[in-house]
Amino acid sequence: MSEKTKAMLAELYENIRDVAVLRSCASLLDWDERTYMPRNASEHRGNQMALLAGIAHERFVAPRIGELLNNLINDGISIESDTTDAANIREIKRVYEKAVKLPKSLVEELSRTIILSQGAWQEARAKSDFASFKPWMEKVVGLKRRQAEAVGYAIAPYDAMLDDFEPGMTTAAISEVFSGLRNELVDLISKIAESGKRPDRQIILRLYPVDRQEKFGKEAAETIGFDFKSGRLDITVHPFCTGIGPADVRITTRYDSNHFPQAFFGILHEAGHGIYEQGLPKEHYGTPSGDAASLGIHESQSRMWENMVGRSRAFWQHFYPKAQTLFPEALKSVSQDQFYFAINDVRPSFIRVESDEATYNLHILLRFELESAFFNGDLNIADLPSAWNEKFLKYFGITPKNDAEGCLQDVHWSAGLIGYFPTYTLGNLYAAQFFARATADLANLDQSFSSGDFRGLLDWLRRNIHRHGQRYRAEQLIKIVTGQPLSHKSLMDYMKGKFGELYGI
Amino acid sequence: MSEKTKAMLAELYENIRDVAVLRSCASLLDWDERTYMPRNASEHRGNQMALLAGIAHERFVAPRIGELLNNLINDGISIESDTTDAANIREIKRVYEKAVKLPKSLVEELSRTIILSQGAWQEARAKSDFASFKPWMEKVVGLKRRQAEAVGYAIAPYDAMLDDFEPGMTTAAISEVFSGLRNELVDLISKIAESGKRPDRQIILRLYPVDRQEKFGKEAAETIGFDFKSGRLDITVHPFCTGIGPADVRITTRYDSNHFPQAFFGILHEAGHGIYEQGLPKEHYGTPSGDAASLGIHESQSRMWENMVGRSRAFWQHFYPKAQTLFPEALKSVSQDQFYFAINDVRPSFIRVESDEATYNLHILLRFELESAFFNGDLNIADLPSAWNEKFLKYFGITPKNDAEGCLQDVHWSAGLIGYFPTYTLGNLYAAQFFARATADLANLDQSFSSGDFRGLLDWLRRNIHRHGQRYRAEQLIKIVTGQPLSHKSLMDYMKGKFGELYGI
Repeated sequence: MSEKTKAMLAELYENIRDVAVLRSCASLLDWDERTYMPRNASEHRGNQMALLAGIAHERFVAPRIGELLNNLINDGISIESDTTDAANIREIKRVYEKAVKLPKSLVEELSRTIILSQGAWQEARAKSDFASFKPWMEKVVGLKRRQAEAVGYAIAPYDAMLDDFEPGMTTAAISEVFSGLRNELVDLISKIAESGKRPDRQIILRLYPVDRQEKFGKEAAETIGFDFKSGRLDITVHPFCTGIGPADVRITTRYDSNHFPQAFFGILHEAGHGIYEQGLPKEHYGTPSGDAASLGIHESQSRMWENMVGRSRAFWQHFYPKAQTLFPEALKSVSQDQFYFAINDVRPSFIRVESDEATYNLHILLRFELESAFFNGDLNIADLPSAWNEKFLKYFGITPKNDAEGCLQDVHWSAGLIGYFPTYTLGNLYAAQFFARATADLANLDQSFSSGDFRGLLDWLRRNIHRHGQRYRAEQLIKIVTGQPLSHKSLMDYMKGKFGELYGI
Repeated sequence: MSEKTKAMLAELYENIRDVAVLRSCASLLDWDERTYMPRNASEHRGNQMALLAGIAHERFVAPRIGELLNNLINDGISIESDTTDAANIREIKRVYEKAVKLPKSLVEELSRTIILSQGAWQEARAKSDFASFKPWMEKVVGLKRRQAEAVGYAIAPYDAMLDDFEPGMTTAAISEVFSGLRNELVDLISKIAESGKRPDRQIILRLYPVDRQEKFGKEAAETIGFDFKSGRLDITVHPFCTGIGPADVRITTRYDSNHFPQAFFGILHEAGHGIYEQGLPKEHYGTPSGDAASLGIHESQSRMWENMVGRSRAFWQHFYPKAQTLFPEALKSVSQDQFYFAINDVRPSFIRVESDEATYNLHILLRFELESAFFNGDLNIADLPSAWNEKFLKYFGITPKNDAEGCLQDVHWSAGLIGYFPTYTLGNLYAAQFFARATADLANLDQSFSSGDFRGLLDWLRRNIHRHGQRYRAEQLIKIVTGQPLSHKSLMDYMKGKFGELYGI
């Protein structure tokens, strides 16, 4: 590499890192807003966030960034090659080109509209009144369509939405994988229902004092590998994980003293995100090589720790005696098998965020089908409620009694987060493929879990996934790590094995 | 005002407000660093703070700010006149002119040196080894002298130091007031010692469970007027108050389960600062008219609530029954008089931050005399320990057994905070003058306190002090509010009255 190229790379990275550091300040402000901020501080917090976002954006879309990218590519840095610099240039270029194509007026209108539309959605959901939300949803979708036209897309407008969350992913590719999954999943879930077996759900709805839930959740998060010297756990309304800096990763949860799984598996889920953030290569902080590969890959980490590890028999081999000691009133006369069955209760329900590991994916498939349809112009917003209910009956065998527990339940569409839903199930698919590979690579994974040792899996993830940052796109990463392209097979194998055994099917 | 002037003012204010909003982001990061930040996050936090400080500085010293200031003054905005705009121009100009005069190299060298010198001080204090700190102290003082030369001063170099904390204040003015105070105070303290009366100190060193201290402290802070909808109370190592935004004011404390006054009066003190911040005019946020008048005025608010209110008989008339209910083990057989005496124990001691309301000021006078002397070249740093001990014996009648409990006890000098100490006693002086005026203006202030009603004093402070922001310099404000210039008389009257009664002198 010539001295000139080196100097240009250094200049590019310095500028990009400053943008990342500025955004990390905004991340702290956001974390604070959702955990500790005094009630009356919202207005000023809005001003702070707007100013930071404005400065970060201004610095990111500066013409000098475009010049450096062009010069570097002209100087021979191939964005196809397998180096850190190539990956950085490729990803910076992708995001930069989209950012400069977006008219400022559209960005501002979107940001104003989304605030109002989320307000309208909250009211509409409270009254289960889709009609009052419909004009807002049409407006948001219209603006996001304009965004798609501005930044461009290969085949379907919805591809542009996907690119923001899962770079390179297309409507066609997802449709293919999801439809394979749907058929087998609908079948599995109906077999589970037909089995007639049901766990005793009351077990996990007894009194679990919040302070002890916190202690237990922290211990579990630490045991699987979340580093509390480089992170925290706090309380919030809608739990999240945020990576504020290389050694500052914060997870959040909410406690319900009469619902054990909510906080516990929530903590494992967020810790899974957090462990990924803590494992990204610090030396590349602020550049794509130091950042998470995609939302789907991020979700694969949270789902793996939450479900494949956290809801496994082996995990509870280690943790159940501790749980019985901490919650004697709730668990003293409950066997480990009864408990394990109760936390793996599969049954159709209306609300996505309360659903189990298996039916969860059906909630996502349904949303993906509907949002790609209305975004690509194949479904009128007006027809959304009936389309929702029709599909719901088909996949789950039940019909929501109103739109509040139907198509109005999620914030995403009101917030303009179109293209986000599929990343949840992509996460489960990636997780199952990675986990199958890890299980094959590592001897006796279950046995390690039973003795509270999660270091083997953690190291495997660090080595195979975390350290790469965005060096590979998700679709390449899955091939490199597992030797296979994205497919529904591993997830179905995993679920058939687990639930087949539990429900005797 | 012409349209052109209006437009220039608007442009100036917009720029200045952005700088304030950026700095308020840094304030949140600083609060987080001192309360919740994970241990390993320090390095990244340093990068965040440096970037925000750099952007804020760059925007503040932009040539356009200087142009606008000059044009506005040429257009006839007199910085002597009594309007909000005039005060804003006067104060922005003062700070701007100092900022542009400071060479960037000096700012950077100072900031690097201060970090190292604070480390050296910590080690030196731990070993009580002044010799190892001496070269660092000489370096810091040398750099601060260069700063004074760069920004300029009227008579003494130390005047430039004062101007950063107490605009307009001079070495000569402080010397005069402090020397009047010193003579009377030394006399009062020796009379107290001679009285032979001593409270039972053990009363306040019994077990006070931390959770109940927190509850009680919060209740007291709220009762005197700190608004928890626009603020918070958290735990830290070195307590502070920070105004992050117009409705986001955060106070902190530390609890010792065997020392009641530390957290309780600490909370009242920080709440006093916080109440001032919450009372600044929101419509002027980001401009000097919306900012605190000076550190001394700020301290007057904290000291008034902490001491003149919080350590008064009337205050405990209302709060003592609550304290007895909350801390029955410690207080059930303690009378209100015994308790009141115990929290007003006056006796010479070595450590400033542990000293009582009366001797505290002697600690400050001594530091002021020494720092103005070494800064103006009348005392060698090498002679500081002996000068300290000599003065200490003269004022307190006792001699520190080593430099750790002598001239090495405070962080200020290692941190380059020369000129800061006097603001503590200026705060007490202002507080006494304001409080005397408020007592004269408001009927039966004591009676209100006894019934838990602090609204009268709060409103008086809002009206006479808080709403003005920096409209008046401290020296004008005290004259406008009390009709008198700064003087030691009110403080001595207050102390003679209070301690005269308690100690029978």
